[in-house]
Amino acid sequence: MNPHLDVITLAVRDLERAVAFYRDGLGLPTKGIVATEFEATAENAAGAAAFFEMESGLLLALYPRTELAKDARISNSAPSSVEFSLGYLVEDQAAVDNVLARATEAGGTVTEPPRDRPWGIYSGYFRDPDGHLWEIIWNRKAATPNAR
Amino acid sequence: MNPHLDVITLAVRDLERAVAFYRDGLGLPTKGIVATEFEATAENAAGAAAFFEMESGLLLALYPRTELAKDARISNSAPSSVEFSLGYLVEDQAAVDNVLARATEAGGTVTEPPRDRPWGIYSGYFRDPDGHLWEIIWNRKAATPNAR
Repeated sequence: MNPHLDVITLAVRDLERAVAFYRDGLGLPTKGIVATEFEATAENAAGAAAFFEMESGLLLALYPRTELAKDARISNSAPSSVEFSLGYLVEDQAAVDNVLARATEAGGTVTEPPRDRPWGIYSGYFRDPDGHLWEIIWNRKAATPNAR
Repeated sequence: MNPHLDVITLAVRDLERAVAFYRDGLGLPTKGIVATEFEATAENAAGAAAFFEMESGLLLALYPRTELAKDARISNSAPSSVEFSLGYLVEDQAAVDNVLARATEAGGTVTEPPRDRPWGIYSGYFRDPDGHLWEIIWNRKAATPNAR
């Protein structure tokens, strides 16, 4: 495989609620829910999903858990927040605090308030309404090449 | 928030096994396990992790489940494969089949063999040794701008 990754799909219990959190709450741009014309069949999952295009071309997608389970042919297990986290780099300490405050206002939950960590970052975590983890990071040491 | 995403951290049960799967099995480049000097304390998670730099600058990280739970201050719940999937675009149908075959040889498990889906893609899914889902995708309709 080549080192690229093109889509990250987050499985959600309520697609409209998840779109509202990311679009209205966090301010990420999207055309909203698309592909609604592809209804579920005995064989196929429903198509309805929402996409957020990241600056690098990466797509962040929201898709119902039930449909992901069907599309991937796996069991729809109980939710777990310990599977992954999404890291978002910012340019200073205040921006970490601000993003976590915004996520809280939008309906997210801060699980770990921001603090310094031994490896040179200042970061905190929130969970989105489906329990998916985001870590908001200011890297004290580096020139923060990816931070915006 | 601005539309960027900088790190995707996959929580793993066995860091060395996960590195072997992604590095040796799938062929993704990495410096291996780093930050081993940051040992766990009562307050802090251990730092040891592995990073794979994607072409867009995105980092794919592997990090132990126990440490992610500690770092994010959440419970270490039972694993679930229905939280997210990672989408990898390829340039033709044969490449989908080839990546799934390679993932199987490396110790992954194909959950859904590749097939056409109503929304115009040919895709299949595999799970990595920790149960994390990847969808390997050939987009029949588009000029596959992200495919390599």
